[in-house]
Amino acid sequence: MGASVQAEVLEQTLSLPDNLGTAVLYRAAASDELKPAVIVVHEWWGLNDYAKSRARMLAEAGYTALALNMYDEGEVSDHPENAKLFMQKALANPKQMNARVDTAMLVLRQQRGVNNNAIYAIGYCFGGAVVLQQARRGVNLAGVASFHGSLGTETPAQKGVIKAKVLVANGAADPFVPAEQVTGLVQEMAAAEVDLQLMNFANVTHGFSNPGATAKGQKYNMPLAYDAAADKASWQALLDMLGREQAN
Amino acid sequence: MGASVQAEVLEQTLSLPDNLGTAVLYRAAASDELKPAVIVVHEWWGLNDYAKSRARMLAEAGYTALALNMYDEGEVSDHPENAKLFMQKALANPKQMNARVDTAMLVLRQQRGVNNNAIYAIGYCFGGAVVLQQARRGVNLAGVASFHGSLGTETPAQKGVIKAKVLVANGAADPFVPAEQVTGLVQEMAAAEVDLQLMNFANVTHGFSNPGATAKGQKYNMPLAYDAAADKASWQALLDMLGREQAN
Repeated sequence: MGASVQAEVLEQTLSLPDNLGTAVLYRAAASDELKPAVIVVHEWWGLNDYAKSRARMLAEAGYTALALNMYDEGEVSDHPENAKLFMQKALANPKQMNARVDTAMLVLRQQRGVNNNAIYAIGYCFGGAVVLQQARRGVNLAGVASFHGSLGTETPAQKGVIKAKVLVANGAADPFVPAEQVTGLVQEMAAAEVDLQLMNFANVTHGFSNPGATAKGQKYNMPLAYDAAADKASWQALLDMLGREQAN
Repeated sequence: MGASVQAEVLEQTLSLPDNLGTAVLYRAAASDELKPAVIVVHEWWGLNDYAKSRARMLAEAGYTALALNMYDEGEVSDHPENAKLFMQKALANPKQMNARVDTAMLVLRQQRGVNNNAIYAIGYCFGGAVVLQQARRGVNLAGVASFHGSLGTETPAQKGVIKAKVLVANGAADPFVPAEQVTGLVQEMAAAEVDLQLMNFANVTHGFSNPGATAKGQKYNMPLAYDAAADKASWQALLDMLGREQAN
């Protein structure tokens, strides 16, 4: 467990119990004012600097954030073939993913200044699908946000089970998220009586929130590209969501 | 033409040329900083105090706003039977509605401090359907926002024709907007390559943004109700949309 302070944000690496791996906690200056807290789940690349940067941004906005590692050995790679293997391994063990999220919630509730009724989870790409799935299984999250994540599921949200509000930011030109998944999500969440906010950005493709996406897409000939407007608008929508909870 | 000043917002009733009726202009203290301007289209009740209050709120936020009257004789009523007649009459003359919107854009472009490339149109109920339809016909609006408006159309948006970004705030329990209209809108806007932001609020019904909706619904046994959370969240999304344009 190491700690360092940068730009008034405390960064602290935590070992989770029960061999659940690690997570990195980010928090602003301690305060007793109760505020939301946010679990951040990384892209299929693993818990790299990008996912950490998002958690840090949340801390800079005044929220406690936990960048949670969903990969067993803390694997990280820049190569899509490795990333695919890591992701498949994680997805093959949903009980462990669930345990990680449950533990992350416990960790956040132990932090001073966290509003226990306002734990959120956000994710990118693989992580977006993970947080949506956590919402569907009825985890007591106030809200989830998926950025360029897969939207389909074999276990749709059920009315009365799902508790989280849902924010989905999607590139309408993302070939990993077919149009039917988008309309399917609208139907699913309406039927489950869940507040859905959908941002569907025209001519925007996978990875739009990650400034490194364009270079990576070119390197590996993949349909990835950063889009500053979509990034900015979807981040603002997330901050609005957290701000509303804070005002309650 | 009369003018009055209240809370630092100037209110001015304008007679439009060509017998197009009236509109009420709201603006904050004059400034040469270029900012977006917004056309506001009323509910089926007509251009009442509610529609005007929204235009005033936009002026208080620093934007020039024009509350546009879509009814020939400036009809206003509290009774749904009258409102239905007014609305049907307006809808039967789409050319005149188009002319009103075109003229409203000209009026806004004549105002000091208006960014000519950032004219928006928003509407409530009937007005929401009107502004969506204006976007579909390719009016050079930067964006439109519909609050509890009907979403269906016989003339869907066409790629390359529609220019406006679209924000739709909808009550998922609004019986006037069937679920198929919501998924249809998502498909329509994706196919037309338009940025869509959809807020679909669970257990929220028609008229949710209007604080007077609940009483009116009870009076006339209609499925109308105010919802403070949906009102607040959707208004913030509109302000975000305008704020993004301003930053460009």
